[in-house]
Amino acid sequence: MRVLVLGAGQLARMMALEAIPLNIEVQAFDVRSDQIVDPINQQVLGEGLQQALRDADVVTAEFEHIPQAVLEPCEQSGKFLPGSRAILSGGDRRVEKALLQQAGVANAAYAEVHNKAELEAAVQQLGLPLVLKSALEGYDGKGQWRLKQMEQLDAVWTEIAQFLKQASKKAKQGIVAEQFIPFDYEVSLVGARSNNGDTVFYPLTENHHVNGVLSVSLARPEHPLQAQAERMFQAIADELDYVGVLAIEFFVVGEQLLVNELAPRVHNSGHWTQQGADTSQFANHIRAVCGLPLGATSVLRPTLMVNILGLDQLPDALLTIPGLHLHWYGKTARPGRKMGHINLSADTTEQLAKRFEQLIALLPEEDFPELELLLPKI
Amino acid sequence: MRVLVLGAGQLARMMALEAIPLNIEVQAFDVRSDQIVDPINQQVLGEGLQQALRDADVVTAEFEHIPQAVLEPCEQSGKFLPGSRAILSGGDRRVEKALLQQAGVANAAYAEVHNKAELEAAVQQLGLPLVLKSALEGYDGKGQWRLKQMEQLDAVWTEIAQFLKQASKKAKQGIVAEQFIPFDYEVSLVGARSNNGDTVFYPLTENHHVNGVLSVSLARPEHPLQAQAERMFQAIADELDYVGVLAIEFFVVGEQLLVNELAPRVHNSGHWTQQGADTSQFANHIRAVCGLPLGATSVLRPTLMVNILGLDQLPDALLTIPGLHLHWYGKTARPGRKMGHINLSADTTEQLAKRFEQLIALLPEEDFPELELLLPKI
Repeated sequence: MRVLVLGAGQLARMMALEAIPLNIEVQAFDVRSDQIVDPINQQVLGEGLQQALRDADVVTAEFEHIPQAVLEPCEQSGKFLPGSRAILSGGDRRVEKALLQQAGVANAAYAEVHNKAELEAAVQQLGLPLVLKSALEGYDGKGQWRLKQMEQLDAVWTEIAQFLKQASKKAKQGIVAEQFIPFDYEVSLVGARSNNGDTVFYPLTENHHVNGVLSVSLARPEHPLQAQAERMFQAIADELDYVGVLAIEFFVVGEQLLVNELAPRVHNSGHWTQQGADTSQFANHIRAVCGLPLGATSVLRPTLMVNILGLDQLPDALLTIPGLHLHWYGKTARPGRKMGHINLSADTTEQLAKRFEQLIALLPEEDFPELELLLPKI
Repeated sequence: MRVLVLGAGQLARMMALEAIPLNIEVQAFDVRSDQIVDPINQQVLGEGLQQALRDADVVTAEFEHIPQAVLEPCEQSGKFLPGSRAILSGGDRRVEKALLQQAGVANAAYAEVHNKAELEAAVQQLGLPLVLKSALEGYDGKGQWRLKQMEQLDAVWTEIAQFLKQASKKAKQGIVAEQFIPFDYEVSLVGARSNNGDTVFYPLTENHHVNGVLSVSLARPEHPLQAQAERMFQAIADELDYVGVLAIEFFVVGEQLLVNELAPRVHNSGHWTQQGADTSQFANHIRAVCGLPLGATSVLRPTLMVNILGLDQLPDALLTIPGLHLHWYGKTARPGRKMGHINLSADTTEQLAKRFEQLIALLPEEDFPELELLLPKI
């Protein structure tokens, strides 16, 4: 069996590593170069989407910002899972918000905004502060603005208008204004749904961002909001007749969850499952889209994940820490680029905290800011 | 960093899968075809040992029956670990027995036998029954004879003489006669030694063979003979100044271990470590030969391994068993060929026994004989 993944980054690579022991081959389609590549070593295997689709038994994606010209033939192939509506729900904030309304799951009140007058109306309707988000390509802190006071409105709109002017004409960029949620912290739920509607869930993960980019995820088994998160996942996944791994990021506000955003794919906050869970998110995505039974998601041991940004080397001494596993992505280093991650596991949370301290001491502080702030949270 | 593995089978493939997340590339040299291949998909990457050696930072092996013409340039490259003496100790029963004597570890008394007169002398010296083993290429039950009674001697020697006559002239085939050990059962120890002499050990594994081929391995943490096995490993590994994973098969006779044979490489009885241990044997071999710190070998949960012989498909329903992980080798099916293995894990040994029962019920009995005999042993 052969799976084609749209996108040739680390997520496709890690799916391939889990697919190989199942005798399932993963090829990746690099949307920018129009090439079919081996996601493990980027070797070129062929050219063009048509060939890629023809040679694949199943088509899936590792990202959601996929041009319409690619999405359409994928959908037409009849092999595409979780399907283009799910991908668009992750890739277009307007589609996402409409879906959340339709599925009846709690999320921040919002309005679409096309001009300054509509922004003023949104302030009237939703109050201040507002978070303004580009509808397309908005992850990792890019394309976001905050409007705290009315006096800033002109300046903020000038910036946004500039942003919209630069946007590609092909993709219909837009702005969604959302009520600011004064959340306590962020969690995400990663789960999988099979083609017969079975679902499995990993425990909620607590996520810590630095400059808008995920830095650390801590698996939180027995979180009191797990059941609430799973109900919301179920509503969304059923609405989409979803097949594959789906990740949902939530704001925690007291005892309530509000959906922040969806990722219709394996997700950075689920990387800890490679060492911390019986079946990893990558294996479960492959199983789901290939029509195989889903694997158990039970937690093997307390585990956290630390992203490696912008570096292609770390001290070898890291590997002396028991329960530490390095996952490099084989990429060329660029500032801020996701280059790999570290999974750290232990028998108990106390032991995990000790190992995390050891790890922090070995990591260059300037490249891994704020880690010690998380120590008391383990 | 690039590692060249002599041999392009499943062991090289599983090493590659563990090397990739460390940003270490594994290439395999197929000794029969003289080609350099990707051990994951057998894609041809180049030709000739010289090129392969030149392009590699480290050279290692997945098997020990390596022609001298290959072994010599590897040794001369200065990159070969664990080195040709270690490989020969696994590949030539005479070298192995001499090594065991030198390291002072217990093993069956033996004599080299070149003709019928020497066989008669061996019977006088060692008694009956005797096990007669070809010195080269003797694994998985091939090239072995039993001599139980004097009356069989002529017939057995006729068979052996025929075998020796057919043997290649290049490789100096021979026969080692060993005292038959009435052992209780067989265990193996898999461990790793780094270039600075550090060692790590997995728990002893109890091994069950059917028709001379490994069928099931059960990890046995806290086995009373663990310390004895580790001392013997240490003596052998130090004698060889060994670097990498080494596997030792033992006969258990009451409270004593006798070395049966060595495998200077990752070993089938260590496949359970992929799911059952913190760091797998494959990762630890790669770490050792690349000069990286060895990883922790602590057991995560009770785990057993079942070999898949001769089949390239199993019911999908297997994947509904929690803690079950399939590892296919991507090979074309032939009767008796090692095609993959199943790792089965659980939280407790009781749960493991239940899951093993579920597994047995789903496996075709004719292809997986004798499994239910092992149930009481879990």
